[in-house]
Amino acid sequence: MTAAPIVPGSHPPATPLLDTVTWPADLRRLAPAQLRQLSDELRAEMISAVGQTGGHLGSGLGVVELTVAIHYVFNTPDDRLIWDVGHQAYPHKILTGRRDRIRTIRQGGGLSGFTKRSESEYDPFGTAHSSTSISAALGFAVANKLAGQPGKGIAVIGDGAMSAGMAYEAMNNAKAAGNRLVVILNDNDMSIAPPVGGLSAYLARLVSSRQFLGLRGLARRISRHLPEPLHKAARKTDEFARGMAMGGTLFEELGFYYVGPVDGHNLDHLIPVLENVRDAAEGPILVHVVTQKGKGYAPAEAAEDKYHGVQKFDVITGQQVKASAGPPNYQNVFGDALARLADHDPKICAITAAMPSGTGVDRFAKAHPERTFDVGIAEQHAVTFAAGLAAQGMRPFCAIYSTFLQRAYDQVVHDVAIQNLPVRFAIDRAGLVGADGATHAGSFDITYLASLPNMVVMAPADEAELVHMTHTAACHDSGPIAFRYPRGAGTGVALPEVPERLEIGKGRVVKEGTKIALLSLGTRLAETLKAADQLESRGLSTTVADLRFAKPLDEALIRRLATTHEVLVTVEEGAIGGLGAHVLTMASDEGLTDAGLKIRTMRLPDVFQDHDSPDRQYDAAGLNAPQIVEIVLKALRHNSAGVEEARA
Amino acid sequence: MTAAPIVPGSHPPATPLLDTVTWPADLRRLAPAQLRQLSDELRAEMISAVGQTGGHLGSGLGVVELTVAIHYVFNTPDDRLIWDVGHQAYPHKILTGRRDRIRTIRQGGGLSGFTKRSESEYDPFGTAHSSTSISAALGFAVANKLAGQPGKGIAVIGDGAMSAGMAYEAMNNAKAAGNRLVVILNDNDMSIAPPVGGLSAYLARLVSSRQFLGLRGLARRISRHLPEPLHKAARKTDEFARGMAMGGTLFEELGFYYVGPVDGHNLDHLIPVLENVRDAAEGPILVHVVTQKGKGYAPAEAAEDKYHGVQKFDVITGQQVKASAGPPNYQNVFGDALARLADHDPKICAITAAMPSGTGVDRFAKAHPERTFDVGIAEQHAVTFAAGLAAQGMRPFCAIYSTFLQRAYDQVVHDVAIQNLPVRFAIDRAGLVGADGATHAGSFDITYLASLPNMVVMAPADEAELVHMTHTAACHDSGPIAFRYPRGAGTGVALPEVPERLEIGKGRVVKEGTKIALLSLGTRLAETLKAADQLESRGLSTTVADLRFAKPLDEALIRRLATTHEVLVTVEEGAIGGLGAHVLTMASDEGLTDAGLKIRTMRLPDVFQDHDSPDRQYDAAGLNAPQIVEIVLKALRHNSAGVEEARA
Repeated sequence: MTAAPIVPGSHPPATPLLDTVTWPADLRRLAPAQLRQLSDELRAEMISAVGQTGGHLGSGLGVVELTVAIHYVFNTPDDRLIWDVGHQAYPHKILTGRRDRIRTIRQGGGLSGFTKRSESEYDPFGTAHSSTSISAALGFAVANKLAGQPGKGIAVIGDGAMSAGMAYEAMNNAKAAGNRLVVILNDNDMSIAPPVGGLSAYLARLVSSRQFLGLRGLARRISRHLPEPLHKAARKTDEFARGMAMGGTLFEELGFYYVGPVDGHNLDHLIPVLENVRDAAEGPILVHVVTQKGKGYAPAEAAEDKYHGVQKFDVITGQQVKASAGPPNYQNVFGDALARLADHDPKICAITAAMPSGTGVDRFAKAHPERTFDVGIAEQHAVTFAAGLAAQGMRPFCAIYSTFLQRAYDQVVHDVAIQNLPVRFAIDRAGLVGADGATHAGSFDITYLASLPNMVVMAPADEAELVHMTHTAACHDSGPIAFRYPRGAGTGVALPEVPERLEIGKGRVVKEGTKIALLSLGTRLAETLKAADQLESRGLSTTVADLRFAKPLDEALIRRLATTHEVLVTVEEGAIGGLGAHVLTMASDEGLTDAGLKIRTMRLPDVFQDHDSPDRQYDAAGLNAPQIVEIVLKALRHNSAGVEEARA
Repeated sequence: MTAAPIVPGSHPPATPLLDTVTWPADLRRLAPAQLRQLSDELRAEMISAVGQTGGHLGSGLGVVELTVAIHYVFNTPDDRLIWDVGHQAYPHKILTGRRDRIRTIRQGGGLSGFTKRSESEYDPFGTAHSSTSISAALGFAVANKLAGQPGKGIAVIGDGAMSAGMAYEAMNNAKAAGNRLVVILNDNDMSIAPPVGGLSAYLARLVSSRQFLGLRGLARRISRHLPEPLHKAARKTDEFARGMAMGGTLFEELGFYYVGPVDGHNLDHLIPVLENVRDAAEGPILVHVVTQKGKGYAPAEAAEDKYHGVQKFDVITGQQVKASAGPPNYQNVFGDALARLADHDPKICAITAAMPSGTGVDRFAKAHPERTFDVGIAEQHAVTFAAGLAAQGMRPFCAIYSTFLQRAYDQVVHDVAIQNLPVRFAIDRAGLVGADGATHAGSFDITYLASLPNMVVMAPADEAELVHMTHTAACHDSGPIAFRYPRGAGTGVALPEVPERLEIGKGRVVKEGTKIALLSLGTRLAETLKAADQLESRGLSTTVADLRFAKPLDEALIRRLATTHEVLVTVEEGAIGGLGAHVLTMASDEGLTDAGLKIRTMRLPDVFQDHDSPDRQYDAAGLNAPQIVEIVLKALRHNSAGVEEARA
């Protein structure tokens, strides 16, 4: 009764049993003996779908049986099921009325690659960032308890996600929910990269030191938590107290009943365990389930990353569609540049929070393993650890995605900026991020960093500039410095042999004109230059500057352009409060606008943009060349026609 | 050999031995037998000093012996000692060359109430926010390890601070430092309020289930960690592995050697334990020290809060100088208002992160204990827990200081704003905070919240407005809403019998004029009105508006004022990127500035302001009436004199 190996064949696969299941209610009408076949069909369907669309594969394959078992045993959607991170929820989506759209996943207008409240009542809480599920499940459980209505909160969380502080904070508070909270620890010894740290080592010991619970062991272990009158309350309390005093598992020490480990691919064990957990009179309960990422698909099982995130692929061979060779990704340009600098500077070190390849730190690690620190999903610690390193004279580079650096905002303020410590922030995935959507967009970093005293904020216009900025950051020992760059491939410019040290707070004029001044920060420079060409073709002489720095501003340059041009437009890939706001503030402080200069700021709109292709996202955001041209023309018309008319 | 009771008498106390100790090097010349007397004198000196200045008392009294023992045993400052939070570091300051300034603490120009790098090389890392010390100590330890130079990282962290996620993240990574990392868990079963949660219960069980380690127990427990050849390496490894497999303490499960519990007031135990820890060949080591907050000063020991933070007091009686009765504090106005609303609305609940009295949630808790959640020092969990409650139909109010909400910024973005869930944020300590200084200032919340789609951001001009805004937030079910208000007493206005529901995004005109428009957000309204009077007395007709909302802006009002006035000035107690930036952005988007309107924004300056009296802080920030007047006059001169002249 172990998972049958999937032999991919017909495409789409034959799924006679799955075809009868649209909703969990359909699933619950099946006999337990049918669930093995259903799981196999579900796995085949998922492989087929992701083969067509690309997306997250390995983690979904690992939880096929768990998904089936949870929906079979628990009363979803009234029991609130939260998939931590949510990229493992493709099987869940297929079983909850979304099979007909599963081949639209991560595409514009299609299903999200994560769970999302607007998609389904079976997604009670959207996820995408790691380690939120226990807190949210606790919220659901407590709300139901207060309202006196049924319904548990169920969090399914990976062992990697358990290393984040907020998971611990939630566990520390779990008592408030009693038996309404169920945490299912999905232990696949793997997040995106292999996990690190004490917790991971502990879980490995735990699994290796205990037998998987068989039916008899399960019964024994669970029986004392069953509702009365199955067991005497007094004895229960006694045993529990004794277990605690003797020192149980780490989870028991935090107040959970610990059940496990359980083989997460064996439905004959999973179903009775979850039924017992469902019916337990006491709680909270943590069920430790051991799964295998990529389970049941040989190419995924064999791959180092277990096909965590994949391009479209051939189901038979597992061969992924290769992106055509093009310019290198920003992350790799950064990783290589930093590794080269470190060859000659023993103080440089690199820190990643469980994203070695996503940040390019893997390339640094190959050259300098002893100076590479993967701290796990622990951005808060990453930043303050870096601050400690800096205070002792090292040159630490914290490489964190823009959206994940939000997790460490207080540490950036309190431990780095207030102390003016030279921590370098290499901020990847700044701006819009295409298929990953709103939860992963790096929209706010310019705003939340440039408002901090002591902070330097840069953005390269292309990958050659990124090399210069990496070097500039390495040289900057007088305080914190950040540089932010987008997801994906560079523009294809030649990379410099020798990196330049940029002057802090100095931009560069890319093209001189007289009437219109376009001030770009970051990689929108290419579209800004296109817009300038279009303006020139209309007879409007246009200056284009690459400001390079959102903070400190190149005030001399801005002052010169403001006093010699009629219209000044800033362009950035960030939310309100960033570069544009800083330029406006400086200009109004100095009275530059008093004499009739027309300033406009172009920025990300005040909405959370859904996943889509990058180009369509930029169009929706209004940050492509035609829209820059339009803003300029409107400003000029404005001038001749007067305020009232233009507003209408 | 227990701590001699302090009988306060002479003032300042006689301290013959302490008078010979200016630096830790002086301390290390003493015989062990003299340390008891030194501790007693140190305690007396601290009581005397804080009696004169006010400040944090109870936590410092609890670590007098620990402070003496650490500096006696370890090689500070080369061993990097980090006091978590740092408000317990007064004895440390006295022993590290700052006794002559200890009576200036928390006063303008005086010593900080926390540790601070600029004050002393014995403060290698500034602290103030909780739970940063292990990460920082790890940074120091690893940097020394990489450089091949001596020096440990030593973190002293309270049991309350251990509940924060970042402490757990750091512990999970502690292995990287080996025996260079020492964590001293100062377990006084008390942070500011009694601690909560699973960890706290666990520590209590741990202490009650084990004997305090006597000398023999200490020797046994430590010996296996001593350097070779004192113990055979093979046997050590064996024992350690066995200890882990059997399930040791929670800390051992995360990879620490656990030593304890140790009586933190017994120097005869503390010194040998710390000596053994210092000399241990393996690590990291966690020493569990049990102390009593307020130890050795009867009035503090007897008080419920152990004199956590005090006003000046009489040393003999412990009687604190009472602030003269005046208007209620904002926090209490909020707590009372929310409690009244909840009388009629069973869905309202309140969440605090270990600050029940500081946020006024204690007042809510008295009326509605079952709907009050103190989650411990766990802001991340607090926010996502609230999001879960909101998703299940509750009306949660998250009451968190502005500076601590930074800890939960990602949760505000990802779990609340993106999902548009109606979590209410009651943000206390917004703006400058006087004696607590830069680390506690709430400078950035307008900027980091108003840049988020879906978010509503309010600030009351006085405590009556706070009552209205609390009610408005309770009524706002369509998405997240925040209101931010300052530390300290209100203005003394009458509180409304019946709270008003404010229209979202609508300001109010407090005073109509024709030439100058002053737009205030928050409690700077009083100074703004003063400035208006002064302007009127110069013949400048002035409008004053209380915008109430930083987001959404009252665009109609701003548009009207911008097109009918010559100068428009915004006033807010927040950093760049907030209200002023939003008004400037709207005005430039609409071309309101094109016709020569003079806009200026007044905000907190781009520096971290040190602790001082609030008035002097406002003066330094440039947010008092004379400075508002000055900005207006300068803008007007600007107009007539032209850009170039005004700039010179």
